[in-house]
Amino acid sequence: MFESAEIGHKIGKAAYREAVPLLRAALLEAQVDLFADKKIPVLVLISGQDGAGKGETINVLYEWMDPRFMATLAFSEPTDEERERPPMWRYWRQLPPKGRIGIFAGSWYSDPIRERIQGDISLKELDARAEQINRFEAMLVNEGALVLKFWFHLTKQGQKDRLKALEADPHTAWRVTQWNWDRLKTYDKLQDVAGHLLRITNTPWAPWVVVEGADDRYRSLTVGQVLLAALKSRLADTEPQESPVAPMVRVDTDGRNVLSQLDLGLQLADKPYERELARWQGRLAELMRDPRFKGRSLVCAFEGADAAGKGGAIRRIAGALDARQYQVIAVAAPTDEERAQPHLWRFWRHLPRHGHATIFDRTWYGRVLVERVEGLCAEHDWLRAYTEINDFEHEMAEAGVVVVKFWLQISQAEQLERFKAREQVEFKRFKITEEDWRNRDKWDAYQQAICDMVERTSTGNAPWTLVEANDKNYARIKILRTLCERLQAEFDNTPQVDAAVGRQKTDKPAKHKNAGKKSAK
Amino acid sequence: MFESAEIGHKIGKAAYREAVPLLRAALLEAQVDLFADKKIPVLVLISGQDGAGKGETINVLYEWMDPRFMATLAFSEPTDEERERPPMWRYWRQLPPKGRIGIFAGSWYSDPIRERIQGDISLKELDARAEQINRFEAMLVNEGALVLKFWFHLTKQGQKDRLKALEADPHTAWRVTQWNWDRLKTYDKLQDVAGHLLRITNTPWAPWVVVEGADDRYRSLTVGQVLLAALKSRLADTEPQESPVAPMVRVDTDGRNVLSQLDLGLQLADKPYERELARWQGRLAELMRDPRFKGRSLVCAFEGADAAGKGGAIRRIAGALDARQYQVIAVAAPTDEERAQPHLWRFWRHLPRHGHATIFDRTWYGRVLVERVEGLCAEHDWLRAYTEINDFEHEMAEAGVVVVKFWLQISQAEQLERFKAREQVEFKRFKITEEDWRNRDKWDAYQQAICDMVERTSTGNAPWTLVEANDKNYARIKILRTLCERLQAEFDNTPQVDAAVGRQKTDKPAKHKNAGKKSAK
Repeated sequence: MFESAEIGHKIGKAAYREAVPLLRAALLEAQVDLFADKKIPVLVLISGQDGAGKGETINVLYEWMDPRFMATLAFSEPTDEERERPPMWRYWRQLPPKGRIGIFAGSWYSDPIRERIQGDISLKELDARAEQINRFEAMLVNEGALVLKFWFHLTKQGQKDRLKALEADPHTAWRVTQWNWDRLKTYDKLQDVAGHLLRITNTPWAPWVVVEGADDRYRSLTVGQVLLAALKSRLADTEPQESPVAPMVRVDTDGRNVLSQLDLGLQLADKPYERELARWQGRLAELMRDPRFKGRSLVCAFEGADAAGKGGAIRRIAGALDARQYQVIAVAAPTDEERAQPHLWRFWRHLPRHGHATIFDRTWYGRVLVERVEGLCAEHDWLRAYTEINDFEHEMAEAGVVVVKFWLQISQAEQLERFKAREQVEFKRFKITEEDWRNRDKWDAYQQAICDMVERTSTGNAPWTLVEANDKNYARIKILRTLCERLQAEFDNTPQVDAAVGRQKTDKPAKHKNAGKKSAK
Repeated sequence: MFESAEIGHKIGKAAYREAVPLLRAALLEAQVDLFADKKIPVLVLISGQDGAGKGETINVLYEWMDPRFMATLAFSEPTDEERERPPMWRYWRQLPPKGRIGIFAGSWYSDPIRERIQGDISLKELDARAEQINRFEAMLVNEGALVLKFWFHLTKQGQKDRLKALEADPHTAWRVTQWNWDRLKTYDKLQDVAGHLLRITNTPWAPWVVVEGADDRYRSLTVGQVLLAALKSRLADTEPQESPVAPMVRVDTDGRNVLSQLDLGLQLADKPYERELARWQGRLAELMRDPRFKGRSLVCAFEGADAAGKGGAIRRIAGALDARQYQVIAVAAPTDEERAQPHLWRFWRHLPRHGHATIFDRTWYGRVLVERVEGLCAEHDWLRAYTEINDFEHEMAEAGVVVVKFWLQISQAEQLERFKAREQVEFKRFKITEEDWRNRDKWDAYQQAICDMVERTSTGNAPWTLVEANDKNYARIKILRTLCERLQAEFDNTPQVDAAVGRQKTDKPAKHKNAGKKSAK
């Protein structure tokens, strides 16, 4: 991996001086095009050995390019807001929007490398993290991003020489501390771990560029030229970046499916409803105050046809909670800041802290439901969304988030009744729009999409609960009961959550994570 | 203040049942109008005594209204990200956007009340906080917000009764803890402090509504009706909400001003420039690693005509910093999330954490410069902006942020030279736009706006440094030197920063805060 970066590359002063103005002009031009185009977010990861010129390179990029269209994203110790969310949350929140360049000083590679060097994670765990990274980067590229990963390499002697040189120069001496010298001792270990990780994350969609770090001019020029070439080629490539997806195939010979199997006649009379409501609301209130919830959080996802009763069910849950403990996110059209990001970004941003809950009224499943059926996104996009969604929910579950998903199923006849009833009752009238009536025409297409969704995204960590919702009483109690049982089961089965990182210490998620994965070594 | 809330108001079951459907329908309609209108953010503060029904009221509002257009904003212990910013940052980051309702469970009143009850702040300090709050709310209202502040009141006996009733009901017993009973002991103290604070924050633009909290139906109906009336009246009122401002008056009889006094002939030759650059960059690097900077942060604001050299100066500062320690925010057109907020919101969101710096390439002064001169905002808006900006910078300074502001002044002739030169040099060509040429026509109007800006916003905590920028060498060194000297002076004068809250313990900012303020008692 590193051999070609130990050749002793050098660029002379004169050659450098000649090359820079042209490179700079071209980079600026590409930046302007990128910003005007507003389709491609650019992620530039600057990583590598200590003293190999990471900081200097970032400064050179700032010198050459226009700071108005770029940002340096630095990650030191996670804040408490970050520690109480899935580990990737801190990167999601800082992703550069379309049209801009984000320079990552530190990235999702930093923690796995450090943890492996320190012996905190096994090689197998490192491989699992690598796979997670590969999928994350694939998602970014599929969403239009250009991902450039630089690794600056130095030989051991080269690193020693560089630290000495930095120390000798009064302008840079402050950069060298005992910490840097100590890092020299772990040189071989870092080489090992980084070499392994780089190899298995050296994907076609986001390959590594290993750069010899010893010569400032060579390193700067190389990074600049690689960045320029990548920008230009990506800007010229008007075809969407698409990883292969298999078309949706369904075997449905007898017309029966998970939805048709539901008994929509299930009912609950008002009297027992009131009793059960008090019972399960009380239970939910208790569970949310359980000490074991302090290191975890809850995400409730509600999907269902119009008038299926999502709002009413959410209010029954909310009624049992402290207003300071939860938020309801009613998913509407994305804002322009959200549109400039991968489609899951607007859900990531609302993930709750430990001890808190977020209830989503409509969710990230919009892509495989309404966007699919209404043709609002390409087939390729909704087909890959299943995997991305599973990854998203898996990352939540792994960090101790209890993910509970409800599909509220009503019959077409019941929906019609409710639409008519709403038109009668003044204070609900506004809820019926033309779109609602139109959606009814696509009932069958929606049923198909729902079945596919359940089949592909009902996972061990985040199963779907299908709710027979023709009777509101029945539906609400089933939802409350399911929620309580899930919380209880999670508390019972996986009590050991490391509050510091929110990562579960049990085997279950790890097993899930590695399921079906070939060893990368 | 509380007398009218001790009358023993009650609403019967029948009257309540009759009133609610109409109220609910009207509230929903108002919400839809509000959302369609997209001009008014609504802030509903739910505060008052413990057990007076704050949580219940929020739940009722959720039951009556559409959760898609509202959010509950809860504030418990500040997170470390919040603690490392000015105290108001956590409220700014959660302000509801235009068209939406934010229900505040806890607000900027919570801390002052608690701190005063605990004796952490003096009455004088409480008054200063109240004045800060009044100005903050005035800004919100001027920016189009509807601010509704509810205070739920109970008599001491009423509070006792209510806690007992909650405890007796198995559905609500869990809400009552020892903490609640302890609060009863501080009843009188709370009455005192809240009474005082409410009185001096009972402004015409954001008055308090004190509601008797004993009867659930009365309380719910009152809040609902007040909210409805306020929404309707605000939606009907198409005139902008404007607090009075005095027109700009300038005495400028001899044509001399702070800009004309600058000696734009000041120069620095390349040799001494290189020497000084190394010296001050080294010094800056030291200061940024000073232990006293760990509990503080730095905000650099750069303003200047096109081609004045802001970018070059910023790069010279950045060159002395660790890329992980700073970010450059190049202020561009606001996003739609930013446009849905008060004009200062998009700057608040970028304030640095302790030990970090944010360098703004163009700033919050856009409103009193380009927006004023180009007529992009009403006179009323830029006239009140001076005060809002001073408040903003004062809040930063008070929290230990070092605010350093540079105006880079060049002559018209020099600007023309630079424009021409840029057109020659390929890699800078993109920077010259038609707008740049057009802006030159308004040179005099801009000079006037700059002089007004300096006069009104060069404060003790955040003074302007006018930089003679015709010679880039001279300008860059002056900027670096000024920055170093400011940091040094801040470290020397105000070393005691309480890292926990970031609030300075010295007298200086407090003095500034109360300057010219009448006693509120």
